[in-house]
Amino acid sequence: MPSPRTIAILGVGLIGGSIGRALLERQLAERVIGIGRNAGRLRKAKDLGLVTETTTKLARGVATADLVIVCTPVDQVVDHVRQVAESASAAALITDVGSTKTSIVDALEGALPAGGARFLGSHPLAGSEKTGAEHALPDLLQGRVVVLTPTRTSLADDYETLRKFWESLGARVVRRTPAAHDAALAATSHLPHLIASALAAATPEEELELTAGGWCDSTRIAGGDVELWRQILADNRGNVLRALEKFEKVLASFRAALEKDDRARLAKLLEAGKAHRDIVGS
Amino acid sequence: MPSPRTIAILGVGLIGGSIGRALLERQLAERVIGIGRNAGRLRKAKDLGLVTETTTKLARGVATADLVIVCTPVDQVVDHVRQVAESASAAALITDVGSTKTSIVDALEGALPAGGARFLGSHPLAGSEKTGAEHALPDLLQGRVVVLTPTRTSLADDYETLRKFWESLGARVVRRTPAAHDAALAATSHLPHLIASALAAATPEEELELTAGGWCDSTRIAGGDVELWRQILADNRGNVLRALEKFEKVLASFRAALEKDDRARLAKLLEAGKAHRDIVGS
Repeated sequence: MPSPRTIAILGVGLIGGSIGRALLERQLAERVIGIGRNAGRLRKAKDLGLVTETTTKLARGVATADLVIVCTPVDQVVDHVRQVAESASAAALITDVGSTKTSIVDALEGALPAGGARFLGSHPLAGSEKTGAEHALPDLLQGRVVVLTPTRTSLADDYETLRKFWESLGARVVRRTPAAHDAALAATSHLPHLIASALAAATPEEELELTAGGWCDSTRIAGGDVELWRQILADNRGNVLRALEKFEKVLASFRAALEKDDRARLAKLLEAGKAHRDIVGS
Repeated sequence: MPSPRTIAILGVGLIGGSIGRALLERQLAERVIGIGRNAGRLRKAKDLGLVTETTTKLARGVATADLVIVCTPVDQVVDHVRQVAESASAAALITDVGSTKTSIVDALEGALPAGGARFLGSHPLAGSEKTGAEHALPDLLQGRVVVLTPTRTSLADDYETLRKFWESLGARVVRRTPAAHDAALAATSHLPHLIASALAAATPEEELELTAGGWCDSTRIAGGDVELWRQILADNRGNVLRALEKFEKVLASFRAALEKDDRARLAKLLEAGKAHRDIVGS
């Protein structure tokens, strides 16, 4: 498949809007069709230069697209991909940006009409505690990782098309099975969200005035959209529970070191955290 | 006491250096004397415009100061304040910037020579995972909170002098007993550091390439100086353990909600975290 020239984005929020704006600023697409339920919000997205045209009619929006990117919440992705496949051209490729992959990919595997549009899952590791098209940034994906999760029935050409597509937006593409993706993201994204939320909740309200930069950084993601994150945590709960177990073990070691006033142990634990942090950098 | 015109800073690192630079840029002091052990680093601090003069001799450095600010690690503050009191003028006021207050204030209460320089504890809630004079910022205290921890033997004049001093650097001053300070900071600063460190350590090294903004924010402080934080956590371990207990209870609720796939409960827990996070803001 040549580079997609007409791209439809279903759900023009932070991610969908940022993709649209990046495509247009980089002149990577001729048409970017924004599809959503709310005509007023779609108009705003067009005014912001995130899409070139808009429609509230999914079937009409995807009919001429080479590539359809489903940017709706995790719980809706499967339904939306099915609807897109019914109306898209047989040559079209469909992807998503969902934060979990196993449930989505499993539900769609073998479930789309043969000879029609194909689905291959994506997950751009970019986001923010902010949501909505008004926060869309053309460089949201610049330097970020996008995980692609092909299955044994995926076409190599589709993988290449998507790899080039995400790379054209400045991202680095890595490949994982859906299961490996979900296990990794439980540790690198979903558990951190849960922990940030628990930390913020556990801070006594009357002492919030004595918070500073450290608290603000470590709880920032707890300010994110509750319903989005509830879906992600629930969808990936098996992996999140396994990641939580590992975290609880480290926490128990910290507890023991404090209870015994074992300062050497405490230093070792802090060093282990710093070592991982320093690998990632700022 | 009129505004201090000669200020000595013992330990010209991130905090001490930032205070010096703010004093000089705002023309709030005539002389800022940097005191430390390493002549080369002191020279660098002077070159960076953080102090007007330097010395490695503590007694000489504090002799003419109206105000001495001890900016050394928590474990050294008591010893340093005692040494400062021996050489400072009888009219001088001594404060510190230590992240814990009870052990410092208790050890110094009634322990300085009568009729000589007095001590009153401070804790500016400003810092960074970065350390060292090269990261000093003149606005580090702008808009930040400084906690003052007077005791029943503190002079009201000294409290006012310090209040005006920190406010002149742009900070907002709040008053707490040392015990109340340490209980609050365990929850708002020390536990978040421990959690960030545990979270970073618990993330499998082979998956660190799949981290993004959320992980980076929530673990940022884990990159901080291990020895500084070991001292703080050990010094305040009773309060940190109590804050940890509260956190563990919230975490157990998250675990139960995930295990039972109780989505309403999960949403409630995320909402509780978001509510506290939204109070503090960015």
